Amino acid sequence: MDPRASGLTQRLADAGQSHLLQFWNELSPEEQADLTIDLQGMDFQEISGFFKNAMETSSNSKQEKMDARMGPVPREVLGSVTRDRDSLKDWELAGLDCISQSKVAALLLAGGQGTRLGVSYPKGMYDVGLPSHKTLFQIQAERILKLQQLAEQKHKIKCCIPWYIMTSGRTMESTKDFFSRHNHFGLDKNNIIFFQQGMLPAMDYNGKIILENKGKLSMAPDGNGGLYRALGNQHIMDDMERRGIEFIHVYCVDNILVKVADPAFVGFCVQKGADCGAKVVEKTNPTEAVGVVCKVDGHYQVVEYSEITLATAEKRSADGRLMFNAGNVANHFFSFSFLKDVVQKYEPKLQHHVAQKKIPFVNTQGQLIKPDKPNGIKMEKFVFDIFQFAKTFVVYEVLREDEFSPLKNADSQDAKDTPTTARHALMSLHHRWVLNAGGHFIDENGRRVPAIPSLKDGTDLPIKCEISPLVSYGGEGLEELVKGREFHPTLMIDESGVHELVKNGV
Amino acid sequence: MDPRASGLTQRLADAGQSHLLQFWNELSPEEQADLTIDLQGMDFQEISGFFKNAMETSSNSKQEKMDARMGPVPREVLGSVTRDRDSLKDWELAGLDCISQSKVAALLLAGGQGTRLGVSYPKGMYDVGLPSHKTLFQIQAERILKLQQLAEQKHKIKCCIPWYIMTSGRTMESTKDFFSRHNHFGLDKNNIIFFQQGMLPAMDYNGKIILENKGKLSMAPDGNGGLYRALGNQHIMDDMERRGIEFIHVYCVDNILVKVADPAFVGFCVQKGADCGAKVVEKTNPTEAVGVVCKVDGHYQVVEYSEITLATAEKRSADGRLMFNAGNVANHFFSFSFLKDVVQKYEPKLQHHVAQKKIPFVNTQGQLIKPDKPNGIKMEKFVFDIFQFAKTFVVYEVLREDEFSPLKNADSQDAKDTPTTARHALMSLHHRWVLNAGGHFIDENGRRVPAIPSLKDGTDLPIKCEISPLVSYGGEGLEELVKGREFHPTLMIDESGVHELVKNGV
Repeated sequence: MDPRASGLTQRLADAGQSHLLQFWNELSPEEQADLTIDLQGMDFQEISGFFKNAMETSSNSKQEKMDARMGPVPREVLGSVTRDRDSLKDWELAGLDCISQSKVAALLLAGGQGTRLGVSYPKGMYDVGLPSHKTLFQIQAERILKLQQLAEQKHKIKCCIPWYIMTSGRTMESTKDFFSRHNHFGLDKNNIIFFQQGMLPAMDYNGKIILENKGKLSMAPDGNGGLYRALGNQHIMDDMERRGIEFIHVYCVDNILVKVADPAFVGFCVQKGADCGAKVVEKTNPTEAVGVVCKVDGHYQVVEYSEITLATAEKRSADGRLMFNAGNVANHFFSFSFLKDVVQKYEPKLQHHVAQKKIPFVNTQGQLIKPDKPNGIKMEKFVFDIFQFAKTFVVYEVLREDEFSPLKNADSQDAKDTPTTARHALMSLHHRWVLNAGGHFIDENGRRVPAIPSLKDGTDLPIKCEISPLVSYGGEGLEELVKGREFHPTLMIDESGVHELVKNGV
Repeated sequence: MDPRASGLTQRLADAGQSHLLQFWNELSPEEQADLTIDLQGMDFQEISGFFKNAMETSSNSKQEKMDARMGPVPREVLGSVTRDRDSLKDWELAGLDCISQSKVAALLLAGGQGTRLGVSYPKGMYDVGLPSHKTLFQIQAERILKLQQLAEQKHKIKCCIPWYIMTSGRTMESTKDFFSRHNHFGLDKNNIIFFQQGMLPAMDYNGKIILENKGKLSMAPDGNGGLYRALGNQHIMDDMERRGIEFIHVYCVDNILVKVADPAFVGFCVQKGADCGAKVVEKTNPTEAVGVVCKVDGHYQVVEYSEITLATAEKRSADGRLMFNAGNVANHFFSFSFLKDVVQKYEPKLQHHVAQKKIPFVNTQGQLIKPDKPNGIKMEKFVFDIFQFAKTFVVYEVLREDEFSPLKNADSQDAKDTPTTARHALMSLHHRWVLNAGGHFIDENGRRVPAIPSLKDGTDLPIKCEISPLVSYGGEGLEELVKGREFHPTLMIDESGVHELVKNGV
């Protein structure tokens, strides 16, 4: 195997990437073959163009400028579960109607690995320690199953919510295996469509691709905005068209409370005639680290928390709320036609964002170095980068405690968004479902536990309660099971009935 | 020593408390003497009346009833730092004016021990681990000092904010010692007035006083509402009258962000002609464990979170906010005349609340038992019990992140309100002060740290920054020190100047 034979040496030289072959002679034949395949699949001109544009955009975007250009989401494009309660039922019915006609698809962004979480497998395979020990994938699958049933019961018509799952090169095989081993959690496997997002090399500040070892490039997924390129490359839009999909709910794998294909959200967007919509939660603390949906130069955008000044973050409207309070929770609605336009026309116009990172690399002496400050960049697009192209953009505000609890980090004292917080959020929601359906919890002494448990012991451990999505998608249908009844935690409600789990096994 | 001689045996028999002498013959002469003193100081008829009334009130107050009787705080009695921004400056000036005339006193509720915090000394002596290692007492003392200075500078007149500190029998000596050893933190010791709240015995469900060992009654402070009785008993109202105090700010020791004698709060209450006012923070999550200020049967009251149903906690107003969102932070305003009426007329009318507790006790065999479920009650009054008597009651809403971070529990993964959260809250506030005064922070690579730091590492450790209250009471006066400057954390600003603390000592 000689890289000169294939013209690779010349292509690398032309692109200023010859250093990638520096250790060629030290590689085994297998390593040489692997490296050759990787390099041959790479369009160096395109990557170099990405780099140039991304670095330019990045150095131009100044924080001070951003603040002056930002405007809040106008009330008329906002639907709110707290402020528009009278419309909620209508929206939900409209969404269920679309679902019953099999016009709605769910699209899951699951390309990331659980690195920060401390696991080497895809996040969707994580078990946060619920009584049922269900994984995030299973919970989401069961919500889809239940929602199909609800739509079918309502409209007496068989329907399907296809589930598109974007993985990355790193997570594709293990994800597919996992679904297969679990019999696709009861879903028809023909309606689960896996596809793969692209990868891009990490580069140093001079545009040189970084070697993570002597024979291997440092590669990373191209951001969740890699979605749009992948949708085109892998003919997913064609699949959607064939199935007659008109509306798509896009969401991230890590939110244990996610209402997959949320009929109220879909119905709201459809009724508003929106081509694009974002679900948000209210940001109430100015320094909370969440991106906000807002207008920039008249176009909708998510502005990341690191891009704005404190003065802007602290701005308030006359009603006392933060002016920029539409906290992005990576839950989006697209019409099919808009998504098609995005894939075909708009996505290629977008620049990559630059994320400065500490990237382990092999230096010219062949030593592996783990830098202690950023030494290069990863290039990413974000799924919300295309909001700006929407003709009718809407925002749908929901309650954080009902719908948003992302799993990001391993458990530790200072960590946020951990398996513990995710588990507690789900159990707290299900506890509230039981109370609102007329059930009660009693403690070991037979006394009713107050709705809001006392903090006297210094913790706010929730009542242990888990309700299978196969029983209830959003709290509905529980009265007949719990009304007027008293339960000792742990309470588990699933397809086989209502159970009180005895402590310590048995 | 014979209890019969003093008539004590008879008094105990009359009160049904003869069991307190059950182990008399096993006690040493010293123990006998101590027990006799304790018993002689006790009004059994009164205690028995407290018990009967408290148990009756407690069994009558049904949750369902409470929900139907509750009404929200009307907008017209509410002042809000987010919704009434135009009035803020006025209120602050009005408050400073009162302070400059020495009409304002601070009253600190510091009777509790740091039991849940895991320390055996008064909470005010706790050091949460700030760069300065100041205790809560010192922080509060310095805020008073600074506020006096600000009022003096504004009005060119010498003034004083007397500081009344209520301790309990358990904390009086150590508290006084601590102040004395620290030279009263620069305050005039004549303007710090310590007084002591009462104690009440713990009782079993039949009204029998509990023995914590063979010769000692189980005693506990009578709740922060014991304030009013103590104010009368110990002639504190007379002291206030002598000093010409017209307005009193009452607060709890455990809130590291407390704005002692907050001029804006005082000014708001005074301008509204209020005799009583409560500072609150907005409750945004229905199941947050915080009491809420509301109207019950037309009278203002704090309803504890354990008293209401989930349905009530989840009720919302048309603006989308929780209907019962005035979260009590134990920061109250009283006019002197109202407080005097409370002490003289209203307090004796109040029943004690019953707190069911696991109370260690000596059984009839003389064995010490630590019960694993509640076996008796402690009787308490609450400081807010007297809101109902106010003629003009107002509510003042402030931002939680600016003003409320209580210290309740020791650090641990699931704990809330810990030394860590208190420390972070203070440093985050001071970080924001520096940014809003035009300063910047830079990281170890010399790059400016965004106002809202990235969460990429999974934690949101604040920028380390501490500003002495002697330099700034509420963020004022920092421009000249920080504007246009860049700082490496840890930044410390105190009377001696602006310092960047080098890591690892030196």
